Amino acid sequence: MRAAIMRNSQLVVGEIDDPTPGPMQVLADVIACGICGSDLHALIHADKLIAAAAEASPDGASFGMDLKQDVVMGHEFSARITQVGPGVTNVAPGDVVVSMPVMADGATIAAIGYSNTFNGGYSERLLLFAPLCVKVPEGLDPRHAALTEPMAVGVHAVAKSGIAPGDTALVLGAGPVGLAVIAGLRLAGIDSIVASDFSPARRKLAAHMGAQVTVDPRETPAIEASRQHGGAKPLVIFEAVGVPGMLQGAMKDAPRGGRILVVGVCMQDDTIQPSMGINKELTVQFALGYTPEEFNRTLGYIADGSIDVAPLITGEVGIAGVPQAFKDLANPEVHAKILVMPERS
Amino acid sequence: MRAAIMRNSQLVVGEIDDPTPGPMQVLADVIACGICGSDLHALIHADKLIAAAAEASPDGASFGMDLKQDVVMGHEFSARITQVGPGVTNVAPGDVVVSMPVMADGATIAAIGYSNTFNGGYSERLLLFAPLCVKVPEGLDPRHAALTEPMAVGVHAVAKSGIAPGDTALVLGAGPVGLAVIAGLRLAGIDSIVASDFSPARRKLAAHMGAQVTVDPRETPAIEASRQHGGAKPLVIFEAVGVPGMLQGAMKDAPRGGRILVVGVCMQDDTIQPSMGINKELTVQFALGYTPEEFNRTLGYIADGSIDVAPLITGEVGIAGVPQAFKDLANPEVHAKILVMPERS
Repeated sequence: MRAAIMRNSQLVVGEIDDPTPGPMQVLADVIACGICGSDLHALIHADKLIAAAAEASPDGASFGMDLKQDVVMGHEFSARITQVGPGVTNVAPGDVVVSMPVMADGATIAAIGYSNTFNGGYSERLLLFAPLCVKVPEGLDPRHAALTEPMAVGVHAVAKSGIAPGDTALVLGAGPVGLAVIAGLRLAGIDSIVASDFSPARRKLAAHMGAQVTVDPRETPAIEASRQHGGAKPLVIFEAVGVPGMLQGAMKDAPRGGRILVVGVCMQDDTIQPSMGINKELTVQFALGYTPEEFNRTLGYIADGSIDVAPLITGEVGIAGVPQAFKDLANPEVHAKILVMPERS
Repeated sequence: MRAAIMRNSQLVVGEIDDPTPGPMQVLADVIACGICGSDLHALIHADKLIAAAAEASPDGASFGMDLKQDVVMGHEFSARITQVGPGVTNVAPGDVVVSMPVMADGATIAAIGYSNTFNGGYSERLLLFAPLCVKVPEGLDPRHAALTEPMAVGVHAVAKSGIAPGDTALVLGAGPVGLAVIAGLRLAGIDSIVASDFSPARRKLAAHMGAQVTVDPRETPAIEASRQHGGAKPLVIFEAVGVPGMLQGAMKDAPRGGRILVVGVCMQDDTIQPSMGINKELTVQFALGYTPEEFNRTLGYIADGSIDVAPLITGEVGIAGVPQAFKDLANPEVHAKILVMPERS
């Protein structure tokens, strides 16, 4: 089958073997798969990604990814089941599903899309772990359902932050992660949301997702905008950019006793002033992923219209278009989320 | 009056003007004043201390300290009141008191011991703010009462950490801050406390304060000791060393979902791997100081024997001995807390 393959830190379009579902696994045709910023990072920094995950997991439960071998990325997908493996009873061929990108293979846990064994959604077909498959509700566009995964990241980060109605949220960065956070904040009953991004198009999306105030940080420092808007309300800063220096900037901007939720994935080393944290008694909370409950709930939000993801989808490509789409995503004025739709290729 | 004066990043013993108490202020003879590690830092890094505090306080409520002028440090003191200013009714001449090292002078708040205006306890006499003065209970040695301030730092850090009975605490560093944390942990009902320090003498003090296990990190990695002792209990790591690299080390050692309480004051820039925090969804909580309630409660703990500070006091010097005491404190085998006792000079 055709796939966009990460090989020697390049994306090449080629053929890979068709997978066969094992016990509790299903084979499914990819309908739509979003391109995630983490994949753009991974193409450049995959070695760091692997090293960081390995260091964070002394028990070895991390990416089983060897960069000398092919990897097919893509972990934000909806798919139609075509074949079920032994023991599968909760889904059947024909079902359109989404799933957390996690595969259980015997005693091994693998990350779908960051594995040499289990290809992700930049391909025609993929294996999923049946117990994690969730049927896409009748009437929901599978292209929209594919955004369950990135939106769940925002829902989770908001829950992890402990923010409460009456607080102000300052969201630094309105890429897909920041936009998901804004959606999550609105659903959590936060009515004072300030978003900061260089890009006018991204700021427009931020407003669409629920930000009351959007600023260009070159014109108005984000912290000033949040003070003007939120006044003396407690402030939680969501760092959704993930480049060196952002965390220290947030620590500098945070008020005394402030909380910073780090959800932007910075793969490089970063420098902070601990004295800044100490003098203000800051809390820095890192967040990753989501729980199965949050994932399923997010699908429900998209299905019932609580999160309108349609404006985030700024492009659709076939598998052949993936390498160019990775380049095109560098322009935030044009793109937020590009979907890979294998049937187009 | 005589004082040990910070002048051009050196300590010199000399004469300074006697202060006069203003409204709501009292004049008091210093009985005992502990030498704090922050003062050792400050002698070398005072410029950074001031810059960090100023950056952390956009409202300017920070150290009003000009290093071109004299500063008399010392903020861990007990003192006997000799004169009260206008409006003071809660204390009287003859009272032995401790106080948070904070002075209100009209609308200005100053840090006693980090101010050009209000000298600290490395001197014969100092001004205190009457509403913050707490009488030392009858029968409590004023030398022990002087340790209220550093012990309160530990009580506060433990409260800030949210640690609960049943959790394990790993305390990195058994200097005065780490020892205060251990005391605070024991008082909070934590019965699984592991402390790590290079120095055998410090480890002995750690055990005295309440650590069940003490390790030399050169022989046994601290995290291994805490895993062996605490098993699968939730772990909170207290970073009480405050040198670059310790935070990243704690982030590397922390389990998934772990909490790190930073109470060691690192004045230099520090490098972390944010990906480590993200992959494990860590919480980094910075702590500073204490509340008035915690300060007063800590005095009570020392008075009723709940915290036995006697073994921490490893030396006593007069004012003339302060410069040498700053040097002597570099040796953790010999010293934990040296008290300045002006009457000895």
